[in-house]
Amino acid sequence: MDYQQFFKGALDELRDQGNYRVFAELERQCGAFPNAKSHVAGADGEPTSDGVTIWCSNDYLGMGQHPKVLAAMHDALDRCGAGAGGTRNISGTTHDHVLLEAELADLHGKEAALLFTSGYVSNWAALGTIASRIPGCVVLSDALNHASMIEGIRHSRAETMIWKHNDLEDLEHKLASLPLECPKLIAFESVYSMDGDIAPIAQICDLADKYNAMTYLDEVHAVGMYGPRGGGIAEREGVMHRLTVIEGTLGKAFGVVGGYIAASGELCDFVRSFASGFIFTTALPPAIAAGAAASIRHLKQSGVERETQQSKVAQVRADLERMGIPHVANPSHIIPVMVGDPVKCKFISDVLLKDYGVYIQPINYPTVPKGTERLRITPSPVHSDQDIAHLIGALGDLWDKCQLARQPLAAQ
Amino acid sequence: MDYQQFFKGALDELRDQGNYRVFAELERQCGAFPNAKSHVAGADGEPTSDGVTIWCSNDYLGMGQHPKVLAAMHDALDRCGAGAGGTRNISGTTHDHVLLEAELADLHGKEAALLFTSGYVSNWAALGTIASRIPGCVVLSDALNHASMIEGIRHSRAETMIWKHNDLEDLEHKLASLPLECPKLIAFESVYSMDGDIAPIAQICDLADKYNAMTYLDEVHAVGMYGPRGGGIAEREGVMHRLTVIEGTLGKAFGVVGGYIAASGELCDFVRSFASGFIFTTALPPAIAAGAAASIRHLKQSGVERETQQSKVAQVRADLERMGIPHVANPSHIIPVMVGDPVKCKFISDVLLKDYGVYIQPINYPTVPKGTERLRITPSPVHSDQDIAHLIGALGDLWDKCQLARQPLAAQ
Repeated sequence: MDYQQFFKGALDELRDQGNYRVFAELERQCGAFPNAKSHVAGADGEPTSDGVTIWCSNDYLGMGQHPKVLAAMHDALDRCGAGAGGTRNISGTTHDHVLLEAELADLHGKEAALLFTSGYVSNWAALGTIASRIPGCVVLSDALNHASMIEGIRHSRAETMIWKHNDLEDLEHKLASLPLECPKLIAFESVYSMDGDIAPIAQICDLADKYNAMTYLDEVHAVGMYGPRGGGIAEREGVMHRLTVIEGTLGKAFGVVGGYIAASGELCDFVRSFASGFIFTTALPPAIAAGAAASIRHLKQSGVERETQQSKVAQVRADLERMGIPHVANPSHIIPVMVGDPVKCKFISDVLLKDYGVYIQPINYPTVPKGTERLRITPSPVHSDQDIAHLIGALGDLWDKCQLARQPLAAQ
Repeated sequence: MDYQQFFKGALDELRDQGNYRVFAELERQCGAFPNAKSHVAGADGEPTSDGVTIWCSNDYLGMGQHPKVLAAMHDALDRCGAGAGGTRNISGTTHDHVLLEAELADLHGKEAALLFTSGYVSNWAALGTIASRIPGCVVLSDALNHASMIEGIRHSRAETMIWKHNDLEDLEHKLASLPLECPKLIAFESVYSMDGDIAPIAQICDLADKYNAMTYLDEVHAVGMYGPRGGGIAEREGVMHRLTVIEGTLGKAFGVVGGYIAASGELCDFVRSFASGFIFTTALPPAIAAGAAASIRHLKQSGVERETQQSKVAQVRADLERMGIPHVANPSHIIPVMVGDPVKCKFISDVLLKDYGVYIQPINYPTVPKGTERLRITPSPVHSDQDIAHLIGALGDLWDKCQLARQPLAAQ
């Protein structure tokens, strides 16, 4: 077999399908978020370093440039150095990790929390470990769960039932089909990343109680953003205590990197003791832990970032509606502007970047279903009124140029 | 099912077997490595903050406190903020990531490199993707490969043949049993973490050539440490160009965190395009990328850290031999001091920490086979002569106290 030829062929196939991904090389400018320098090659192939405004970041609240976060990281770098120097079990547990886990347990009102190197790894390792280690465990997984959850469930090799997205009737039907004594784990998200819709958490907990199931809620797009202390949708709805596991990330609204679960002391200790993806990996740097803890502490007490973000989201939605640019009417901070054509979606994104200095990554198949290609816009408290006016003007121009339909409000 | 009871029972079982892990909570002190404050509870259960010397860190060269690394991280924090703000494909690719990947490709003499959030994820994602996507691929995996490689191979669901550790005859026997045209991937490490032995890389490449196999070499315990520019054992032996994939970490000798592969442009692009664990995860913070790049650049040009470390390793080995304390005679920087009893191994580690201020994590089953329980010592260039004398004196005391046999040199 000619291996190089195989790799080349697979990449050519991606290109032919229009699914080959190209990185947008940016230089984030601390203090000037959401602005960045773009290192994307210009039309002549030469690298440029034009200024751009990022409209698709998951640093939802701009905490990545918050003075308290940066001060905590600078301080920890000077105190403890760069890396942790080992796994959590072999010389890699520092005081900063322990403090951060206490902060996270408190955020979600749980007995304990456990850190992972990323949100991806936390889902993969926690779901994989729980579902594989409980004999006969059946996982009931929402149809639109994130790749990291799917991989963790797949990794567990537990029996899996996929229930229709956010469909309580289908979930109950599947739960009822299993014996009451059969161990069950319902895995779902609060805010779904691509459509921005929100799960009926309380009702899912009702079903979990009725059918004796554990619940595993991924709040990565909600922590820091919803609830009086940024505990997520479950906090806002007063149901954190009803969930078995709450999973979150330190890499989106908290502005740093890393993932975690919060749960009972025994459950966290169980995952800590058995998860290969936790045990055999270098711990996060102390400076990352310190920065994340500072961010969480700040957002527990300060609501202004959340409020400002929500008003910016409302402003962008209202302007899109005024212009008749179709977007999904969902109850979250994620604004999917629907293009519905992969070539136009990529074209609009390219022109926005090159001619308007607006960076929005096109979201095409396989990340979303064919025909629902979109621009996923995430307004933040640090986008100015001018930024919004410029964005809306640019989208208006391109809607004309691409002869895309206008409508008051898109059905998804 | 009573889930809490299940978790509790599983943890009790671990405790009964002596396999329950307890974190040693440390506070690394930048500028004073390998010294740290210990937050481990004292005999009275009260937390202490005694000074300890860490003898089991994987920050092998002390680069975690190198001024160039810290300066690069401080600078990137001020330039770019805390986190990357997104996945590599959606707003998370920064100039610092691109520069680091170029540095890594150059380090290993390869066309390209690809960053991951950890060494664990790089093995899991790269092996999982390559082995699953090439139809009919058979993975030939060394029997002592790291958990992250095993999980990646398992994830791929490709046919797997385990060959006896570092045994060329067994590897050839297995290669020869497969049709020449069958795609094959030989996965192995250069320096094995627990025994410190080194693979016959050139001869494995000879077999790969003969039987048309790809090679995947994990150099996590060797990058930065061996070879004129810190390219690893493969660089030292002049065989980097013969390997299909070289995998490494930024979290051990380079002192930061993260993992990578270096390979042909097509192979890296293939993994970049298909690996779920690469695509759907937040990118490393720019400051991490900048710190790692500074560390690699420094160790490409400076040999003094490697030379000093090797002389400290030789010094510790000679002192252990003088005292008759059994250790494995291997050709690497890892010194496994053999205790051969799990209870004594844990006891010695506890007393070292509490009475001598020496921190060495005990390594028991299942990390190593029963009867080979050990203290894994990793001398660094920043351990002083006094540190070494104190360590050897403490081990001598405890060898008497535990009535452990002394011998000139341990057979493993």
